[in-house]
Amino acid sequence: MQPIATQASCLTLLTDFGDRDVYVGAMKGAIACVNPSLSVIDLTHHIPPQDVATASFQLATAYRYFPPGTVHVAVVDPGVGTARRAIAIAISEGILVGPDNGLFSDVLNRSPAIAAVELDNPDFWRDRSASPTFHGRDIFAPVGAHLASGVVLAQVGSAIVLPTLQRLPELPRERTEWGWLGSIQAIDRFGNLITNLAGTLVTSEKWEVAIGDRCVPGCMTYGDRPSGEFLALAGSDGWIEIAVNGGSARDRLQAKRGDRVELRDSRSS
Amino acid sequence: MQPIATQASCLTLLTDFGDRDVYVGAMKGAIACVNPSLSVIDLTHHIPPQDVATASFQLATAYRYFPPGTVHVAVVDPGVGTARRAIAIAISEGILVGPDNGLFSDVLNRSPAIAAVELDNPDFWRDRSASPTFHGRDIFAPVGAHLASGVVLAQVGSAIVLPTLQRLPELPRERTEWGWLGSIQAIDRFGNLITNLAGTLVTSEKWEVAIGDRCVPGCMTYGDRPSGEFLALAGSDGWIEIAVNGGSARDRLQAKRGDRVELRDSRSS
Amino acid sequence: MQPIATQASCLTLLTDFGDRDVYVGAMKGAIACVNPSLSVIDLTHHIPPQDVATASFQLATAYRYFPPGTVHVAVVDPGVGTARRAIAIAISEGILVGPDNGLFSDVLNRSPAIAAVELDNPDFWRDRSASPTFHGRDIFAPVGAHLASGVVLAQVGSAIVLPTLQRLPELPRERTEWGWLGSIQAIDRFGNLITNLAGTLVTSEKWEVAIGDRCVPGCMTYGDRPSGEFLALAGSDGWIEIAVNGGSARDRLQAKRGDRVELRDSRSS
Repeated sequence: MQPIATQASCLTLLTDFGDRDVYVGAMKGAIACVNPSLSVIDLTHHIPPQDVATASFQLATAYRYFPPGTVHVAVVDPGVGTARRAIAIAISEGILVGPDNGLFSDVLNRSPAIAAVELDNPDFWRDRSASPTFHGRDIFAPVGAHLASGVVLAQVGSAIVLPTLQRLPELPRERTEWGWLGSIQAIDRFGNLITNLAGTLVTSEKWEVAIGDRCVPGCMTYGDRPSGEFLALAGSDGWIEIAVNGGSARDRLQAKRGDRVELRDSRSS
Repeated sequence: MQPIATQASCLTLLTDFGDRDVYVGAMKGAIACVNPSLSVIDLTHHIPPQDVATASFQLATAYRYFPPGTVHVAVVDPGVGTARRAIAIAISEGILVGPDNGLFSDVLNRSPAIAAVELDNPDFWRDRSASPTFHGRDIFAPVGAHLASGVVLAQVGSAIVLPTLQRLPELPRERTEWGWLGSIQAIDRFGNLITNLAGTLVTSEKWEVAIGDRCVPGCMTYGDRPSGEFLALAGSDGWIEIAVNGGSARDRLQAKRGDRVELRDSRSS
Repeated sequence: MQPIATQASCLTLLTDFGDRDVYVGAMKGAIACVNPSLSVIDLTHHIPPQDVATASFQLATAYRYFPPGTVHVAVVDPGVGTARRAIAIAISEGILVGPDNGLFSDVLNRSPAIAAVELDNPDFWRDRSASPTFHGRDIFAPVGAHLASGVVLAQVGSAIVLPTLQRLPELPRERTEWGWLGSIQAIDRFGNLITNLAGTLVTSEKWEVAIGDRCVPGCMTYGDRPSGEFLALAGSDGWIEIAVNGGSARDRLQAKRGDRVELRDSRSS
């Protein structure tokens, strides 16, 4: 496998640009100018403005489900135009392109970087220049399109020493007497509370998750509990989550990112 | 025509996943892993969470405008992981893929099922296994991609007896002394109230629709009435709808799904 | 270059249809029925209902970033079904398709019309007929797909005399003693206030923009000012905009479209 010299034809986009403006459209135009036959797939453009941590979580939730060699262009970039680096990182599954501000932390926790470059070769930018406020359109999208079209990583910029890549602080997670203490790391559209505890940490048949003064029983799927009841399960990307069958755990618990949870063997409670 | 063995290259997606999470993106990744050159088209991902009736209406509004053989993957699936079946249904226009919970009722009212299977052949699933909470990514998307790529229905699962397909109850609609009594079945972004009465039920040149204590005159298009005035017309998918030229009938009438309407000859009022 | 006889394979869509209904999906179905291998790119579908001026601004912000010959289908069409014309306009960068209601004003201010036709040849419509309420699906999308597939402008309709194309009134902009008086023409997702004054109007090294009783210093990028501070800069599409580093100028100033601003040399204040 040669992930650095990829022939992938898929390119994904993840931004905080929303869908009311044409910023995403302009990025897609810049991609089409490089290669109109790429398969361009939106992950989401509704990351809350400048929320790098949410972007990092969402990208890590999606990237493993794409064909080998897929290029993921992610732009949540409050530091655009400043000294923060524009980068591309090769991982075993494909290539990540975006600002060096921690946005790739969660992906890199799962798939270590193989190589990385700073995007300092304007031959692969749009028109060899870049607006100081929209590197998504002028650098990241066209460079991503070139990489997805077979250009190799070393062409688009200068090598970066891997330990210098920016990383976000991790949410608390630690072993306890009864199991694991963790944190809510994301809340989805359905109001499911996604923790930073992996489903593989469950070791007994009967288990539960405590949040606040509530204990939620571990299950296999939403329908294992009556409608309106709380449950915990290992979600579709592997994290333990807290849900309400047919309802919203967020609304019922007024929970938010960072809230603490504890996974434990049911016999201990 | 061989709708069961199709070579279609279009696949549509309709879900209640919204656009803030990367669930739709992960489904598209699973599709690209099967066949990255399919044309994947979003119908909508903003079905209200777990609202199977709205999903059924929206799918029926769109499916007739696609090329023959198009595969429609629809996932509004509150029973994911329970005993509800995962199915694919051949109709004369193409193939429907999703949970057997009534989601295809409105399409089947227009285009009867020709054949149906339960998706019990894991050879066509993602990695031959399925998360108990995300069949959209692990079963429906990859199976849909295979069907859109030429795999025949009989390969992806075991035949189902057609009368066992789940159907939703229909909203009231009946002949009256003066015309037809019907129901609001959907309200669109513009606030137009879409009834379950077909425009073909209009038989006289002058007609009207009654809703509450208001009588709305039948017209051909929005501009046939002054700005701000109510009107009724046969909408773009054939249903009679109530609108306000340049405004929102929903806001003006505080109407909702299920509200009763009556179509009648104007001379009778 | 022959912009009238184009072989472009990109087609963009911009509408006020939102994403809760399947209207955009039905347009894409109509496009796929003509040519399923076109690259169809969404600019935005969140133009406020019937807001032709915002549509005109957004289209003008995006069209220059697409490959030569791209077809832009734009549908914000309060007059659908009335006497307003359905048109296609050739410009040097590609082709515009939509209602003749001023929607192309801002593009035409930048790229003059080369030729235009009224879409009166039903051979290129969906099924040779058109719903009186949904020309997007029945006329604009299929005609746009034919044009993007190589059909020439003269085939799809009768020539229009260019000065008869509808244009929107322009927002105030005029030379003043100290610089330029202009207007907020749009506000983006991040709350940046986009004026109708071009960055090329800045002639001195130190400059500022006045809005209400506030003076905002001119900069190169958001990070040039401390977090939470106001700044002005030449935005990514060339217009001067007012922003808050890491915040929302709209929220801080309660600004809206049409509000007046003044660009001036800092030494004059």
